[in-house]
Amino acid sequence: MGTLKEVLHEIDNGIDNSLDRLFDLLRIESISTDPAYKDRCRAAADWLALELSAMDFDASVRPTGGHPMVVGHDRADAGKPHALFYGHYDVQPVDPLAEWNAPPFEPSLTTAADGTKQIRARGACDDKGQLMTFVEACRAWKAVAGSLPIQISILLEGEEESGSPNLEPFLTANADELRRDLALVCDTGMWDRGQPAITTMLRGLVGEEVIITAANRDLHSGGFGGAARNPLHVLADVLAAVHDTGGRVTIPDFYEGVGELPADIKEQWAALDFDDGEFLGDVGLSIPAGESGRSVLEQIWARPTCEVNGISGGYTGDGFKTVIPSKATAKVSFRLVGDQDPDRIRERFRTFVRERIPADCSVEFRPHGASPALRLPFDGPYLQRARRALADEWGTAPAISGGGGSIPVVGAFKRLLGMDSLMIGFALDDDRVHSPNEKYNLSSFHGGIRSWARVLAALGEEGR
Amino acid sequence: MGTLKEVLHEIDNGIDNSLDRLFDLLRIESISTDPAYKDRCRAAADWLALELSAMDFDASVRPTGGHPMVVGHDRADAGKPHALFYGHYDVQPVDPLAEWNAPPFEPSLTTAADGTKQIRARGACDDKGQLMTFVEACRAWKAVAGSLPIQISILLEGEEESGSPNLEPFLTANADELRRDLALVCDTGMWDRGQPAITTMLRGLVGEEVIITAANRDLHSGGFGGAARNPLHVLADVLAAVHDTGGRVTIPDFYEGVGELPADIKEQWAALDFDDGEFLGDVGLSIPAGESGRSVLEQIWARPTCEVNGISGGYTGDGFKTVIPSKATAKVSFRLVGDQDPDRIRERFRTFVRERIPADCSVEFRPHGASPALRLPFDGPYLQRARRALADEWGTAPAISGGGGSIPVVGAFKRLLGMDSLMIGFALDDDRVHSPNEKYNLSSFHGGIRSWARVLAALGEEGR
Repeated sequence: MGTLKEVLHEIDNGIDNSLDRLFDLLRIESISTDPAYKDRCRAAADWLALELSAMDFDASVRPTGGHPMVVGHDRADAGKPHALFYGHYDVQPVDPLAEWNAPPFEPSLTTAADGTKQIRARGACDDKGQLMTFVEACRAWKAVAGSLPIQISILLEGEEESGSPNLEPFLTANADELRRDLALVCDTGMWDRGQPAITTMLRGLVGEEVIITAANRDLHSGGFGGAARNPLHVLADVLAAVHDTGGRVTIPDFYEGVGELPADIKEQWAALDFDDGEFLGDVGLSIPAGESGRSVLEQIWARPTCEVNGISGGYTGDGFKTVIPSKATAKVSFRLVGDQDPDRIRERFRTFVRERIPADCSVEFRPHGASPALRLPFDGPYLQRARRALADEWGTAPAISGGGGSIPVVGAFKRLLGMDSLMIGFALDDDRVHSPNEKYNLSSFHGGIRSWARVLAALGEEGR
Repeated sequence: MGTLKEVLHEIDNGIDNSLDRLFDLLRIESISTDPAYKDRCRAAADWLALELSAMDFDASVRPTGGHPMVVGHDRADAGKPHALFYGHYDVQPVDPLAEWNAPPFEPSLTTAADGTKQIRARGACDDKGQLMTFVEACRAWKAVAGSLPIQISILLEGEEESGSPNLEPFLTANADELRRDLALVCDTGMWDRGQPAITTMLRGLVGEEVIITAANRDLHSGGFGGAARNPLHVLADVLAAVHDTGGRVTIPDFYEGVGELPADIKEQWAALDFDDGEFLGDVGLSIPAGESGRSVLEQIWARPTCEVNGISGGYTGDGFKTVIPSKATAKVSFRLVGDQDPDRIRERFRTFVRERIPADCSVEFRPHGASPALRLPFDGPYLQRARRALADEWGTAPAISGGGGSIPVVGAFKRLLGMDSLMIGFALDDDRVHSPNEKYNLSSFHGGIRSWARVLAALGEEGR
């Protein structure tokens, strides 16, 4: 325990240097979904590989069909268990840019109105800030003890924000290299500022783009309005039909495999300090929009959804244009729970849409990723040790929580490598992840590094 | 009649020069709705004023709150009646630019697969090509006869494609200067390639932008999906509710003042050589989308509509973003007929929308122009003379038709100046007005110039 104390001391003393390194990474505009930023994604991968190499990892940038992976293996043999840490270096697009208070790729440490210190930048939280908590914890251990408490490999992806198209092929092709005793994933949140969380339940995700075509060209609404089919009307009709007035999805068999929450989990969630009104009030809302008769925690952790994430068609610039467009497009995603099958959900949605397309219109679909929900039967020693380590750091036991968002890698680790994931992250609900003015509290970053230092120590303790 | 013959000969001989001048005008990117093209709109106005001055018009570019007007008065006193010609020099935006076969502001004369010669450019038809038919007819008359058959003033607007915000103030401020015996308006179409048309009935137009706001910022659909209101869903619900399954608009009292078509007009339209299937088939459609039980001509000329002209919200770029956006926007327009009141339609639509907005969301409206429908009681001598002139040119009597699109200036002339408009234009249904690859047949341009030369002569004949 003396060594851990020194490691934590090293972390506290070095926090400014840790921040400098994070800022270097945040300055790299690694937006994976926009092809214009391909070189910046590569630059972020190079930067990380260099950092790991400097920490005596055998690190390399590994090509894929898209943005590269960074893989690093600690050169020292630090003993069992052998864990694979996963994070992602790519970030979301920054639009609408006008709503940022500062340029998204010029990170700064600012003090909020409530006195909290916040790291501000795109990726400050998701996932650069989070992944660096682990890297910095490893760095501190090596600086103090010369080695890590357990054997560590690191995998950093560059396409998490664009559906991870190359993740599964890469895992399959490098299964022997990446299959370890467990995975450590840092892409989730704390319960609140004072209480950490370990996520053991994740919703799945199906992304789908729908393109409806009516006339073979844009039409003048004066000359054709009233006679010509407007694909924006067809799209509105289809999207409006997806939910009933009680918030349920109306696609046939959509709820197949969903199941009800076990009573004990329901109880545990009810006991959490969670206020529906406050959760919604923080973002300016007050009425839960999901299935009626469900708590908000159920709605976001344990119930499936269909959300329209983007819609476009016709004239959307300044002013007005009296056009009946040829095409209308929507990006739609589904959050899955339980045993819902992503491929069947996609197929049922497509059937649902096709049945609502007039005979002289056509519809095209473009898939954007699919991953099933995960519920980890995680009652083994690793979870218990991590719980203790987090409790030591934060002075309170971590919440064993669900997660509304999917983390496809966790499903892929399980399915392709048979590997369970310990999901520990330090994001907060108000971090504006995916939105303008994303931030990461300094307390999340600093406490996150300290937490991982403790978790590594705990995982290295034998037989307790 | 000898002089007219010479004028027509002059037109035929000079058609290449007429085309050159039209191309000069088409090269000016006068997109009125986009503030980036302000200087180009001014350039188009300057070019036209110079052309009119060269024809011995007292011409000037007159400032407004937006793009300027061009006003010209023939310096010669050519006698009664005194007509005001109206056209507009601004054009629609060109998006989607990728669908143009050639740059939209680099005009060319091309031969289509069916052998027709076509002028290709944004504005080739609407309205630069059309207004130049009149200018070139005047030029030919002056060249041959030294003067025009009647007294002519010309008004060319630069904001027709963006709702004409400054037209009415300008007409009001210059009423004495612009009030003439009748207006000549060239912004409508032929019946088909062989048969001209005079439009005596026009639908009105109300434009409205709807902006729905849910959360105070964009949200991650993983963290919030299922609990947070998605404004794209609210928008889809509202827009889907606007029409019933029979194609009727469901907004309360929407059909107030619409009325049924008089039997004689219905008969005349039924006798026109119009094929519903062909009309829709030309644009790749086959099923009339409007009110069931109405002919397509009724749907586009005599029935009111509600059309969504543009929709946007959430992530619409390449790839996918699992966002629940804060805002969703639609641009909606209404075509009005009979005595429908534009202001009441707007107010009823707003009420209809507000009633469908959840209590924790908000909605904002932005008006984009309003004009009532027009039905001209046009049985006076001018119409008869124009009919004869067009019949002489095309060898067939012109159709006395309705028009689906509104031409707000015609309403303003009537309301503010008490002036009726003779609407003669040479557009064809396949001119791709407002769409990529807009064109104007050479036969429309050439025949249009000849037609106006004849109409001017006919209007100048006394007492026949």
